[in-house]
Amino acid sequence: MSGIFGCYDIKGNTSDVTRDAYYGIFSLQHRGQESAGIAVNDEGTFLVHKASGLVTDVFDEVTLSALTGTCAIAHCRGGSPRESGTDAIQPISIKSRVGSIALSSESVIMNANKIRDELKDQGAIFQTNTDSEIILSLFSRNRIRTEDCEHAILETMKEIHGVYAMVFMTEDKLIGVRDPYGLRPLILGKKEDKYYISSESCALDAIGCETIRDFDPGEIITISKEGMSSIHYNESATCKKDGKVCVFEYVYVARPDSVIDKMSIFDSRYRVGMALAKESPADVDIVIGAPDSGNAAAEGYAAGLGVPYGAGLLKNRYVGRTFIKSTQQQRELAVRMKFAVLKTAVKDKKIAIVDDSLVRGTTTKHIISFLRENGAKEVHLRLASPPVKFGCCYGVNASSETELPASSKTVEEIRDMIGADSLAYISLESLKASLNTIDCGVCSACFDGDFIAGKPEDDEETIHKVKYN
Amino acid sequence: MSGIFGCYDIKGNTSDVTRDAYYGIFSLQHRGQESAGIAVNDEGTFLVHKASGLVTDVFDEVTLSALTGTCAIAHCRGGSPRESGTDAIQPISIKSRVGSIALSSESVIMNANKIRDELKDQGAIFQTNTDSEIILSLFSRNRIRTEDCEHAILETMKEIHGVYAMVFMTEDKLIGVRDPYGLRPLILGKKEDKYYISSESCALDAIGCETIRDFDPGEIITISKEGMSSIHYNESATCKKDGKVCVFEYVYVARPDSVIDKMSIFDSRYRVGMALAKESPADVDIVIGAPDSGNAAAEGYAAGLGVPYGAGLLKNRYVGRTFIKSTQQQRELAVRMKFAVLKTAVKDKKIAIVDDSLVRGTTTKHIISFLRENGAKEVHLRLASPPVKFGCCYGVNASSETELPASSKTVEEIRDMIGADSLAYISLESLKASLNTIDCGVCSACFDGDFIAGKPEDDEETIHKVKYN
Amino acid sequence: MSGIFGCYDIKGNTSDVTRDAYYGIFSLQHRGQESAGIAVNDEGTFLVHKASGLVTDVFDEVTLSALTGTCAIAHCRGGSPRESGTDAIQPISIKSRVGSIALSSESVIMNANKIRDELKDQGAIFQTNTDSEIILSLFSRNRIRTEDCEHAILETMKEIHGVYAMVFMTEDKLIGVRDPYGLRPLILGKKEDKYYISSESCALDAIGCETIRDFDPGEIITISKEGMSSIHYNESATCKKDGKVCVFEYVYVARPDSVIDKMSIFDSRYRVGMALAKESPADVDIVIGAPDSGNAAAEGYAAGLGVPYGAGLLKNRYVGRTFIKSTQQQRELAVRMKFAVLKTAVKDKKIAIVDDSLVRGTTTKHIISFLRENGAKEVHLRLASPPVKFGCCYGVNASSETELPASSKTVEEIRDMIGADSLAYISLESLKASLNTIDCGVCSACFDGDFIAGKPEDDEETIHKVKYN
Amino acid sequence: MSGIFGCYDIKGNTSDVTRDAYYGIFSLQHRGQESAGIAVNDEGTFLVHKASGLVTDVFDEVTLSALTGTCAIAHCRGGSPRESGTDAIQPISIKSRVGSIALSSESVIMNANKIRDELKDQGAIFQTNTDSEIILSLFSRNRIRTEDCEHAILETMKEIHGVYAMVFMTEDKLIGVRDPYGLRPLILGKKEDKYYISSESCALDAIGCETIRDFDPGEIITISKEGMSSIHYNESATCKKDGKVCVFEYVYVARPDSVIDKMSIFDSRYRVGMALAKESPADVDIVIGAPDSGNAAAEGYAAGLGVPYGAGLLKNRYVGRTFIKSTQQQRELAVRMKFAVLKTAVKDKKIAIVDDSLVRGTTTKHIISFLRENGAKEVHLRLASPPVKFGCCYGVNASSETELPASSKTVEEIRDMIGADSLAYISLESLKASLNTIDCGVCSACFDGDFIAGKPEDDEETIHKVKYN
Repeated sequence: MSGIFGCYDIKGNTSDVTRDAYYGIFSLQHRGQESAGIAVNDEGTFLVHKASGLVTDVFDEVTLSALTGTCAIAHCRGGSPRESGTDAIQPISIKSRVGSIALSSESVIMNANKIRDELKDQGAIFQTNTDSEIILSLFSRNRIRTEDCEHAILETMKEIHGVYAMVFMTEDKLIGVRDPYGLRPLILGKKEDKYYISSESCALDAIGCETIRDFDPGEIITISKEGMSSIHYNESATCKKDGKVCVFEYVYVARPDSVIDKMSIFDSRYRVGMALAKESPADVDIVIGAPDSGNAAAEGYAAGLGVPYGAGLLKNRYVGRTFIKSTQQQRELAVRMKFAVLKTAVKDKKIAIVDDSLVRGTTTKHIISFLRENGAKEVHLRLASPPVKFGCCYGVNASSETELPASSKTVEEIRDMIGADSLAYISLESLKASLNTIDCGVCSACFDGDFIAGKPEDDEETIHKVKYN
Repeated sequence: MSGIFGCYDIKGNTSDVTRDAYYGIFSLQHRGQESAGIAVNDEGTFLVHKASGLVTDVFDEVTLSALTGTCAIAHCRGGSPRESGTDAIQPISIKSRVGSIALSSESVIMNANKIRDELKDQGAIFQTNTDSEIILSLFSRNRIRTEDCEHAILETMKEIHGVYAMVFMTEDKLIGVRDPYGLRPLILGKKEDKYYISSESCALDAIGCETIRDFDPGEIITISKEGMSSIHYNESATCKKDGKVCVFEYVYVARPDSVIDKMSIFDSRYRVGMALAKESPADVDIVIGAPDSGNAAAEGYAAGLGVPYGAGLLKNRYVGRTFIKSTQQQRELAVRMKFAVLKTAVKDKKIAIVDDSLVRGTTTKHIISFLRENGAKEVHLRLASPPVKFGCCYGVNASSETELPASSKTVEEIRDMIGADSLAYISLESLKASLNTIDCGVCSACFDGDFIAGKPEDDEETIHKVKYN
Repeated sequence: MSGIFGCYDIKGNTSDVTRDAYYGIFSLQHRGQESAGIAVNDEGTFLVHKASGLVTDVFDEVTLSALTGTCAIAHCRGGSPRESGTDAIQPISIKSRVGSIALSSESVIMNANKIRDELKDQGAIFQTNTDSEIILSLFSRNRIRTEDCEHAILETMKEIHGVYAMVFMTEDKLIGVRDPYGLRPLILGKKEDKYYISSESCALDAIGCETIRDFDPGEIITISKEGMSSIHYNESATCKKDGKVCVFEYVYVARPDSVIDKMSIFDSRYRVGMALAKESPADVDIVIGAPDSGNAAAEGYAAGLGVPYGAGLLKNRYVGRTFIKSTQQQRELAVRMKFAVLKTAVKDKKIAIVDDSLVRGTTTKHIISFLRENGAKEVHLRLASPPVKFGCCYGVNASSETELPASSKTVEEIRDMIGADSLAYISLESLKASLNTIDCGVCSACFDGDFIAGKPEDDEETIHKVKYN
Repeated sequence: MSGIFGCYDIKGNTSDVTRDAYYGIFSLQHRGQESAGIAVNDEGTFLVHKASGLVTDVFDEVTLSALTGTCAIAHCRGGSPRESGTDAIQPISIKSRVGSIALSSESVIMNANKIRDELKDQGAIFQTNTDSEIILSLFSRNRIRTEDCEHAILETMKEIHGVYAMVFMTEDKLIGVRDPYGLRPLILGKKEDKYYISSESCALDAIGCETIRDFDPGEIITISKEGMSSIHYNESATCKKDGKVCVFEYVYVARPDSVIDKMSIFDSRYRVGMALAKESPADVDIVIGAPDSGNAAAEGYAAGLGVPYGAGLLKNRYVGRTFIKSTQQQRELAVRMKFAVLKTAVKDKKIAIVDDSLVRGTTTKHIISFLRENGAKEVHLRLASPPVKFGCCYGVNASSETELPASSKTVEEIRDMIGADSLAYISLESLKASLNTIDCGVCSACFDGDFIAGKPEDDEETIHKVKYN
């Protein structure tokens, strides 16, 4: 996963775009904690600063002040199965026939290898192992025979199969692109003379700007001195209602205060909790959330049951990238360090614990065991998503199916494996029904195996095992 | 504030004490985020590693592996009004007539200047501006004319006036000390052959060890090859019930899963919330906590009112030491970045927001304003502590009285200042009554001005404005 | 300027090539102090480590140990007028149709912009501003229609006009290339099963290996499992005698213990000094060198005159990249810090000071002034090269002609400007005659303006003013 | 060894003292490359910056600009047998009864352990393992019962036995001290309103200030607003002529352009070379120096013989602290990297190589071997000092006697060990006679075993094996 962000001041003021980009990716940090970067357009010269680490680690006041410009794009990313090393840190900035272009993308291209090989056959060279470099290489070729950047992007979209949200910065434009399925969210905002493109609305709210609207699936929106304009991948189709945004954005990925495709994340989770109370009630004294991702659904579940919602587990907010796990017993100790049990809140209680989903179940097993150690009488697990049976090749959940208990075990077997007194999942129908205000469809491939954007090729290459700069 | 921690393997095994110390201060990180350090006793040679930053920034696997020993003490500290610079980073390790001694202390010594001057008059030199160096200097002089380290500490306690919790590491002992008032918490634990001393029980739980008991006020507990022994500052007195632990540990400082002097922190906050519902109910649709410190009281307040408790505000967990605030409008923007409002949860609702306390009120004012921006119909503020009228010279709250609105303003004036529809504080009586299982008294000087350990001298000196090492 | 180095173990052993590459560029450090890098071929995976700084700053034991392989190429570079930023740090490693390729080059391509534009017109993208990326991009296109890498290089050489020495590392070969003029030196060595390619012979001597021979101008030498093979840019011509190596390698650039194109650097300088004594004797008590580059010629000049050669000025070896110059009076103070005058050696003496060349003359002026301050009776300056009248567009001397006093001033005017009692340059004829064992010609464009490889295009672009990684 | 430096502006200007201190220790860098530091007096507040590394590594423009003040002391130090770790980095700054005091010292105290134990018995604590902390602790006690700082220093000098040069910075004075034997050099300079104290005159020359005079043995010179004043350890004695400065300052330690106790270092070495030519001539074609320390004597030897002096070996100036030595064959390869042989200068020649001294002889052996590899017909070694038979407990040469070949082997045996055709040492008489302008005696304990300041105690302690800050 990644967070992408762009900002353009159409009056050409330089005062704020870089700082807005900083606050933007800071607010999207939950989408990726491995690296961060900002590229700015300083009167045609592109300045880039990017590095491994959190946004607050990568940028300081001096660096930020040096990045002046009227347009900025930014990126934060998590670890990805096929992009690794400092090479993969975005934004990427290149020079082509039509000048400097920088790109922040959240993408998984299914036919990446095939395209890369075709480009190599034409003599192209690749310095990184990223989709972004492939996209820029394709784009530059397409730009030769198209009238403008937008149509070069359109041609590129025809060649790449996959899921993506992207912001391009050219010498005079900021261009956002959402894949034709609308699998990745992307949203447009505005404050005074500045337009913003962001993975999620929470970043727009944080900056205090107004949300204009979500990108349509396959939409290419351009911000330039002339303001905003838009073209679509499939002009004839009414795209929005046919779109299929990733359902896991609602389940887990997005920040609770974001609104994606007209549906509030917090609301969707709360409503799933309510629905779960109807589908699978539990006779309990208290409902607690698996912190922090299960909290909203737990609150809804408690409301649905008419049972108090409260804290029982707290998450240690200092566990980060550099936390040292003990070599022995490391998983259990790491879980102990990560979660604190409020003994007096759980002692002698029948507890329902609500989690957003159960992927591998290892942490959940430890949590249930801690609750029992601290005197919980019963522990009932409720899950705000259906069984995760398929590894997501679109980058949301990188597990293979053999690692997913739900792909081979019954609910009872999983219940016993994790040591709960009872276990229930929300049904896919109820989950979808809970998204009551959404204005498009959802991809639920991880639950039902319907991979609408295809599956990736198998053979992967890596350029540089180690590459420091 | 600081977190202190010590661990001694009485069988002389070296495998775990350093790692336990790492996990110990990691679990006490909420008591201080400015610096971290560990000192170990490696067969008489004291190894020290300490630096500015979070525990996870200061230590990596290589450093931790190099710190082998059978006894370790550790420290994490926050900014302190009179100890600054890298000098002040603890533990401090020295050599004296009786060998190497290291000290981790959480202390505010009222007569520090007087003692330092007296020691200087005897020819002593000071390389830092810390209380710890004064304590070690006094201790070393006292050690000359006392039979053992414990009695040298006892003599030192007679000379220093203040509040403190300390762990000394000598070449063959680990010694914990709690001040005669018991103002700072300190607790003893055990797992297999290892004894532990910690600021709070949460660190003992995280490591998976058993809590033995809190230190008595004025108690000096020694861990050595012979096991555990104890002496008291005032042997004739039954100290415990006369102790007065800082009430702000319950209000704000300690981690919710800790138990201090037999009283659960979470419970105390939840019970205060319940009491507040009786004292100052509110006609609201939902009760939310000011995250994260107001959550437990909010949960109790909601239970007391019989109104749903839920989330309305979320705290961004990536705001840390290195977050860059905008130069313009910086306070408001920082608050916006720090807190996310769940619009759908607050829109058109009458809301009670519960916070642990109101010190300056600046952040609270912005939060109330954000809630209204997002459509809240009414916002009622409830505070789980009485008005903070006195700056705490014991280090918990460094504000001067002129900065504390409650020292000069009425409740109504404060309500108007922060923009709430109503405002109510818990009474001191109810706060104290909520601590139903506590086995000692509390210091409530910040509310009533009764500074039981005296006030500090005024004239402070600083050795080194800048000192890098 | 840059230093390039390559090493291949034709038996496939991995023990030494990386360390040899480290020692290799360490011995070539005088050719460039700004950055250093090594790329190794680890069974088809290319590992790269490179960064700003001296070789000894960029590599430590841990890094070096991680770079295992059977072939390695390395690079050190100085600041270059058109390649800047971390982008420009070499080696560069890419993936093309024929697999991974890495390149270390010391190059100035005259028609770089034209080629880059042509490639862009074909859709190519550029991530750096280096000649190396252009060369790799051309090479990859040429490789499609050629039978092997060597012929792809040959085709590339036909397209680029300029001066260069390069080492390519492919998945199964190490290939060295010297430009058709032979302007840049490149030499081949061997020790046991390992072949070496180096900018200068001094690196071969340092490693203890045997020099095989200089590359011919336009020669492409391949090292593979089959051993060594060679093709030429112009197969019909006897290239060597028509080559024109840069005369400034003898004057200043190369290390005194190197031998380039059969001529010893030290010898060439000593012989120039002897010739200078004949052409322009001086009535002096002692001959001193301008340290360290004038020492060899000074020794020869003294021998020619029959006057003692000795030290009078010492160079401070701690002046490096990070030396802080005072803001006021900075040039003079920097010169004072850089050079120490041996007062007793120069007091009351008539002195001849021999320098390799006079480019701008600023430092020389200060040195002469210091000598006089310390009591020198007369100071006669002798220069071991003719007047530098033309800025070298091949990268050796980046000064523009307006900065070169010799392009507009008479010898007398320069003498007065720098404050010498007399001033004499060696004639170009004598300089060339002193290279008595050289087996090719020399380029002396900086003296006579005959730029045999043409002049560069004017319009330069820069991709990224700032680019950190 | 260390370099110490101090600067005081008696008119109270702040503009230059820190920069002068930077340039001062930069010019003394040859006395110690391990760490560097500067302390300044900023209107009574002492600011300190110090760290491991070269002067140019430790300070940058930002740091230097932050260190404003009217008085500064500075320090650079080499590795010392008994002071290690970051603790030992100077200057040390403390607070005592009479305010802040900082100290830069180059010292070896013979009775350090005894004094430290006595101070501990009085209750003192030690945070480092340095002599400087002992001296400051003693000084602070003595200051209580003396009228001023100078007499407190005098009392301290009576208690410590050893060799030292020191600069103290108090809140209103800069005080320099040379030990009663005058073993360590110390010199006073002046430029406009600023007084300077430096280990060597070269630092005064570099800054462009005037040398006033050497400190007398046992002299304490004070710089204050009132200007300069001086007292002596032994007021009744005419100290200067009885002093015994370390002869190795002339042989090896000091920079050639320095003048110590009226004797030029360069001159002393040149004159020794002349004397050596008389005592031990050699029938050779050329005289070369072992770079760089043997060059001056080589020049004198050549002049004495009437044979050309020239270069034959060059020292690589990039070999520094971070140079990685190969694990195998490391010594020989390190020597190869360190020295380049000018083959054409030595081939078929009979060579005399002059070195300053022969301590262990390992490097010399490799050098002679390289000269022969490169075709030298004969290699005659001449040494500009007598046989080094005794390890210097005063810090100049830390070798134990078992490592010194001259303490057990004959000249013939050493000649064979190192592979020279002949070997000769200068006699101690001639060495002393060469110091023709010196105005005091010399300590030649390393040659004759006469340790005038006694020998150190044996038992050493170390506080902290590892101590990072």
